[in-house]
Amino acid sequence: MDPEEFRRNAYAVVDWIADYYKRIESFPVSSQMHPGELRSYLPPEPPRRGEAFQIILQDVEKLILHGITHWQSPNFFAYFPCNASGPAILGDLLSSGLGVQGMLWATSPACTELETHVLDWLVPALGLPEKFLSTNAGGGVIQDTASSATLCAVLAARERATGFQSNKKGAPGKLVAYTSSQAHSSIEKAIQIAGIGRENLRLVEVQSDFSMDPDALSRAMKKDRDSGLTPFFVCATVGTTSSNAIDPVAQIGPLCREYEAWLHVDAAMSGTAALCSEFRYIHDGIDFADSYCFNPHKWMFTNFDCDCFYVADRKTLIQTLSVLPEYLRNKATESGAVIDYRDWHIPLGRRFRSLKLWFVLRHYGIEGLQFHIREHVRLAQEFALWVKDDPWFELVVPPPLNLVCFRLKKGDEANQKLMDALNRSGDLYLTHTRLNERLTLRLCVGQTNTTERHVRRAWARIQEEAGAIAGR
Amino acid sequence: MDPEEFRRNAYAVVDWIADYYKRIESFPVSSQMHPGELRSYLPPEPPRRGEAFQIILQDVEKLILHGITHWQSPNFFAYFPCNASGPAILGDLLSSGLGVQGMLWATSPACTELETHVLDWLVPALGLPEKFLSTNAGGGVIQDTASSATLCAVLAARERATGFQSNKKGAPGKLVAYTSSQAHSSIEKAIQIAGIGRENLRLVEVQSDFSMDPDALSRAMKKDRDSGLTPFFVCATVGTTSSNAIDPVAQIGPLCREYEAWLHVDAAMSGTAALCSEFRYIHDGIDFADSYCFNPHKWMFTNFDCDCFYVADRKTLIQTLSVLPEYLRNKATESGAVIDYRDWHIPLGRRFRSLKLWFVLRHYGIEGLQFHIREHVRLAQEFALWVKDDPWFELVVPPPLNLVCFRLKKGDEANQKLMDALNRSGDLYLTHTRLNERLTLRLCVGQTNTTERHVRRAWARIQEEAGAIAGR
Repeated sequence: MDPEEFRRNAYAVVDWIADYYKRIESFPVSSQMHPGELRSYLPPEPPRRGEAFQIILQDVEKLILHGITHWQSPNFFAYFPCNASGPAILGDLLSSGLGVQGMLWATSPACTELETHVLDWLVPALGLPEKFLSTNAGGGVIQDTASSATLCAVLAARERATGFQSNKKGAPGKLVAYTSSQAHSSIEKAIQIAGIGRENLRLVEVQSDFSMDPDALSRAMKKDRDSGLTPFFVCATVGTTSSNAIDPVAQIGPLCREYEAWLHVDAAMSGTAALCSEFRYIHDGIDFADSYCFNPHKWMFTNFDCDCFYVADRKTLIQTLSVLPEYLRNKATESGAVIDYRDWHIPLGRRFRSLKLWFVLRHYGIEGLQFHIREHVRLAQEFALWVKDDPWFELVVPPPLNLVCFRLKKGDEANQKLMDALNRSGDLYLTHTRLNERLTLRLCVGQTNTTERHVRRAWARIQEEAGAIAGR
Repeated sequence: MDPEEFRRNAYAVVDWIADYYKRIESFPVSSQMHPGELRSYLPPEPPRRGEAFQIILQDVEKLILHGITHWQSPNFFAYFPCNASGPAILGDLLSSGLGVQGMLWATSPACTELETHVLDWLVPALGLPEKFLSTNAGGGVIQDTASSATLCAVLAARERATGFQSNKKGAPGKLVAYTSSQAHSSIEKAIQIAGIGRENLRLVEVQSDFSMDPDALSRAMKKDRDSGLTPFFVCATVGTTSSNAIDPVAQIGPLCREYEAWLHVDAAMSGTAALCSEFRYIHDGIDFADSYCFNPHKWMFTNFDCDCFYVADRKTLIQTLSVLPEYLRNKATESGAVIDYRDWHIPLGRRFRSLKLWFVLRHYGIEGLQFHIREHVRLAQEFALWVKDDPWFELVVPPPLNLVCFRLKKGDEANQKLMDALNRSGDLYLTHTRLNERLTLRLCVGQTNTTERHVRRAWARIQEEAGAIAGR
């Protein structure tokens, strides 16, 4: 495909995407495809000869579209959002077009320096401590997901706790990690991967708002230390997946100091809210953190994948993850004057992901981002009021930001039926969790194009289906 | 940015990319930027207010371009290639535009099913064993890089060897892994991450062609078992990074069977060659493998990131990596009829990466891919003949495929000078390794648009600079 063919075909793809966003509300939000259905449409073998681009693009419309759950629909309220935006898509397109691989500074200086710079921009913008700046002893890096960031934090903590002996001799048996019973599954996954073992992860009890109970943490750490174990890692969550609970980092931090345990703060979705001064309290106590991550690909209009991971002490992270073979040696690395991001994460190769983040920050400006975040929070809070005012429903917990946890008072079965009916209708998409052992519906306002109209309609549809199910 | 603004701005980005490819040979291949230079051009704070898209795009031209090492230049011969193509860029653009997150089948059935299907397509196309098919007990998944794929293989091997007790109780101290002294640094990294410890990784001696010596492997495994240790994992490399050496998988495989060790085959770059019948011998013995990976993002015209990772027994992989919290439960998962790829790798979230691979396979067709691979190998072999015929140079090892390892006979210093001069000139970009303790230049032919003209010119420039340095 030469540059002129590329231009022509790319215009067609751009048109398809622009038109997709214009008609996105016409599709059922959650795909109605059956297991195996797409595969049944596809030929059993790849083509021997090349096909015309037009035919391939037609198949996207004919075959793929039907199997898409529309995460970019303004009626998507499920899970956490994974919001995208025009500038992010175009930053990502440029990254694909340039096709650079930024494993080392030398393999594309701009790929590394833009990333370091943009991540430094976000430190004061989110009220994060200055120690996270690359101009101090820390620094930020883009990871694919918070799962990977958490794993890196666990590994760095493991090495710090063992004087870098685990990398050499294997994980010792005495390390213990802590997170709340409401924390994300990726903490358990990371603890397993790192050879610590999930039996050495304590799921600390939570308070009535589902945030970690610092007294319970204190007791658990003491008990373990008294048993001869080494508390080495605590993950606090700023905005749990189930209910957006915000762990009291300011109380957890001093315990980590006392026990010399690494404190990682996972603010995957909610961190973005700290762009607004009135929500910055979510980062109270963040000065205690050894590492922190949040995902612009969730709530900051930056296409997946983009997790921003910060450390206070980059040397420990680098020493944990660096292996330097001859074929990667180069003068810039040896000068010590540059960052080689390959040593900041699991993969060696890496895309130029900071382009999309840079585009987003410049297109919206900080004030533009604040505007949208405030609007999402306002809409969620309004939705919560409607729930509260409806005698058939209850709020399970007061929503701190943009996630509302609610349920029909009628019991689990009715709630399951309600959710299934709503999702089957295709008018909106929401998902569930269990809180206090009861099935709870979650409505998260965070898609880029969600406005008051969509949230009002969601509530109207919820009431309508509830009426049919609960016989109101 | 509404759909019409997006369309307009996207056309501008498309034009920029199309024009970039037209003028790509006019840039120095390796960026001439100094450490800190890009950052010095960027404002210390993000903008408060949004900026016009045109201004942002102008800054790509004015600021970013100078800091790009042009991996997509046909004069890029460094490292391994990371080649891109029009259809791949456009598949990736569609993925960004759709913005789906395919962690579960249910969160976009097409994202999962297309991936499974296209990876099945590649099994017979590459001469891989049928056990890797999803329709049998195995299956394929797209990972970001071979580093991550290797880590997953190590983890699955660790769990299989310990009856899934390592996930529970932590990595035990008695496991030992093996790879050749020429294997990629990611093996060591994975062994460290998994809590095995690099002292429990044996770097097995190689033969004169730098491939693993199976007798040395056999001795090492025996010695370890006799010492009460458990050989649990062997990584064979099909195409080492230093010199493209191909480990004798057919001889390594039976040893793995004997010791019940997991055999992972890392064919990151070279695997693509198996599309051509005459190069399929590189997969001899692959029937013994428990897992395998190769990177279409290296030599198969598919933008980074795209590593295809196959396992023979998907249940072991899934049991190793699955953690199922309430908020991810859904009917499709519980039916057992679908694949949830979140359980096949480290991250939870995932892009719709199979679109670009599907686009590449359909645009080129298998014959089109074969044509380009054959041409790259032919050019590398021709280059090797020129080296051989020049009395000032020597071939360090006969090139099996598209990577030529060569050197000036004059000693390390002259070779370092030669490489530095060539790279500084910007006319081409190549990198080095050490083989038999001597500095060796590597020229890898694999960029999408590299033709005979570029390889001839590279050789002419090498001879020219060598003349100046070696005083010929």
